[in-house]
Amino acid sequence: MKKAALAAFAMATALPVLAQQAMKPEDQIKMRKSTMDLVGYNFGSLHAMAEGKKPFDKAEAARNADLLVLLAELPKRFFGEGTDIEGKTKAKPAIWTHRADFDKKLEKLGEEVRGLPAAARSGDMEAFKKQVNATGHACKSCHDDYKSK
Amino acid sequence: MKKAALAAFAMATALPVLAQQAMKPEDQIKMRKSTMDLVGYNFGSLHAMAEGKKPFDKAEAARNADLLVLLAELPKRFFGEGTDIEGKTKAKPAIWTHRADFDKKLEKLGEEVRGLPAAARSGDMEAFKKQVNATGHACKSCHDDYKSK
Repeated sequence: MKKAALAAFAMATALPVLAQQAMKPEDQIKMRKSTMDLVGYNFGSLHAMAEGKKPFDKAEAARNADLLVLLAELPKRFFGEGTDIEGKTKAKPAIWTHRADFDKKLEKLGEEVRGLPAAARSGDMEAFKKQVNATGHACKSCHDDYKSK
Repeated sequence: MKKAALAAFAMATALPVLAQQAMKPEDQIKMRKSTMDLVGYNFGSLHAMAEGKKPFDKAEAARNADLLVLLAELPKRFFGEGTDIEGKTKAKPAIWTHRADFDKKLEKLGEEVRGLPAAARSGDMEAFKKQVNATGHACKSCHDDYKSK
């Protein structure tokens, strides 16, 4: 394929273009929802393993954990000004009036998530459960204050 | 927080539950769209750097590439039988009638994506561009045949 054709393809695909410019509020909302879907999928897998609701699989747990570390870096990019659009988001307006607290909670999530890969690979189920629970607390702490039901 | 409260939180959050059981077709569609949004965002960033449309940032490129490697493992989980629901997806029915070819194209994407982290970290812009273009070809090759405009 010619370089021009590839560039045209990249331009025709909606989201790649976002990385090239400031993202529109609607696109930020879309990206934070997609990111949270992936976070939920991967954390849900770890939580089910920690709770014995599905068999512990070290390779899958490690993959889930590695992915969560990288995903947890993303949400802060997608809560810009103007992304509090009624009817389009469950993010509460309090995020923007209590931004420092919100950012602190997001950072706390990052800290807990960064403990997951080692816990998943350790083979120590108690350590694994402990880290999964700590991560769940960090999720819940932020959702309780900043996400509508 | 008590263990029961955390479990209740996990159950109340829609997507974590998905990992505990066979995913419904609608949930698979949602997850594959979210995964593709993240793939587009991260690949778009690499493509923009490769094309000189945004400055090359090695740390960001490495993060984009690492995330793509993990994300590229996911789509194959979300194209199950019954997920060809008209009006809900741009995935063409040909996916399910030409499954071996579709899977081969998805595997080719994985191969190209797995070359991105080293290319991003090499500091060799020609090698980086080459791998980004090879990955873009793999995306396009599958979209051309299996994704509606």
